[in-house]
Amino acid sequence: MAEITSYPHRVEPQEVDFTLRASVASIINYMLNVAGTDAHNKGFGVDVLQGQSFTWVLSRLAVEVREQPRQYEDVEVDTWVNEFNRLSSTRNFRVRRSDSLLAEGVSQWCMINMETRQAVDMSTLKDVYERAMVAEPSPIAIPARLRSIEPTTTTSRPVVYSDIDFNRHVNTLRYIDLIFDTLPIELIENNNGLRIDLNFIAEARYGEVLTIGAVEEGNTWQFEISADGTKTLCRAKITF
Amino acid sequence: MAEITSYPHRVEPQEVDFTLRASVASIINYMLNVAGTDAHNKGFGVDVLQGQSFTWVLSRLAVEVREQPRQYEDVEVDTWVNEFNRLSSTRNFRVRRSDSLLAEGVSQWCMINMETRQAVDMSTLKDVYERAMVAEPSPIAIPARLRSIEPTTTTSRPVVYSDIDFNRHVNTLRYIDLIFDTLPIELIENNNGLRIDLNFIAEARYGEVLTIGAVEEGNTWQFEISADGTKTLCRAKITF
Repeated sequence: MAEITSYPHRVEPQEVDFTLRASVASIINYMLNVAGTDAHNKGFGVDVLQGQSFTWVLSRLAVEVREQPRQYEDVEVDTWVNEFNRLSSTRNFRVRRSDSLLAEGVSQWCMINMETRQAVDMSTLKDVYERAMVAEPSPIAIPARLRSIEPTTTTSRPVVYSDIDFNRHVNTLRYIDLIFDTLPIELIENNNGLRIDLNFIAEARYGEVLTIGAVEEGNTWQFEISADGTKTLCRAKITF
Repeated sequence: MAEITSYPHRVEPQEVDFTLRASVASIINYMLNVAGTDAHNKGFGVDVLQGQSFTWVLSRLAVEVREQPRQYEDVEVDTWVNEFNRLSSTRNFRVRRSDSLLAEGVSQWCMINMETRQAVDMSTLKDVYERAMVAEPSPIAIPARLRSIEPTTTTSRPVVYSDIDFNRHVNTLRYIDLIFDTLPIELIENNNGLRIDLNFIAEARYGEVLTIGAVEEGNTWQFEISADGTKTLCRAKITF
């Protein structure tokens, strides 16, 4: 059994939005960055997996944001893994300003073979993983399974160079930008707390056309991003 | 007289492109970040200027990139001011991997009144500025003055939430993304050195529609970004 690990971070100018607070996309980026760093430090990072042509893929994520830290604020990002089976691993996050809780998150990951893009049995990592497990429950409800929606508004645009990561797939953070870019800006300006659930279903490639569909119901917004009008890439639900 | 100041930076995962090298936009971001930090450290940062309702505005920038550093590499960003008159200030940059030169830049700034958006005479900063001047020439030719182009291709899209800074204007870095997103991706993939000149002419606001025009001539690409089809925002020229 291991303990929760904390990583310091200072909110940089390029991470804040027009309210001078870290955007939700930036807060999620802090979580995904420490996920990579912590996996590396514990011996199951992408660098180790790549030797076997395996890599981590984020399948679901839930984040609750209470307060967005301001430019140049120093925050701590806590992370710990508390569940692990053959097909999925659960990593948790807390973003704090010393003792004050700013955001919490739960992520679910699977391992895939980079050549076949198929899921891989994680039992081979069992020993190293068990040493990294922390006996601390997830801080919020695990990510919801999201169903298809009937969008009332849609926008489309091609995948471009600045969207893609080293696999030439659209970067996870870019889906979050696309989702928040669809919201009325006043909702973001006046945000005093939200929960976002995300399901990552398939990967978009350079040259494909992204369609972002949205539907609003009270203080809940649902999104579905698809490629070339057919392949579902990502679903999201935000509750303010 | 002062000396060149160096700021360390580690290339983070969100700063690299699909080639796992820092994008040109990220390298320019390193320069603009140290410009802000260094101005603050020397006593003429936006925090001091805001007391008088003034702020810095980047008017022209030239950057020559020899080599893009790779993910997790540690680089040093050098910066110094070597020219200053009533209407313009020149700040220079060098990005190094210890002794190996990766990129160089020259930026020209003016000061504006945030309420009237008009240029302000910088003579009031003369004393504090003169103490910060460094007797070292600019490392590359100063930014060219770019003329209007006859674009052969154009694309358009609205300004969205993730484009804007605290003034609700499109962020400088986003223009650079828009420009590189217009280039054939093979040029970026095989880039072994380029120079980019940028002129920033006017500011785009949330809700306006951006049009990106481009024209190619041999190994030179020219760009003009305008708002709502009329107001010219930014011109750029890239030579590979």
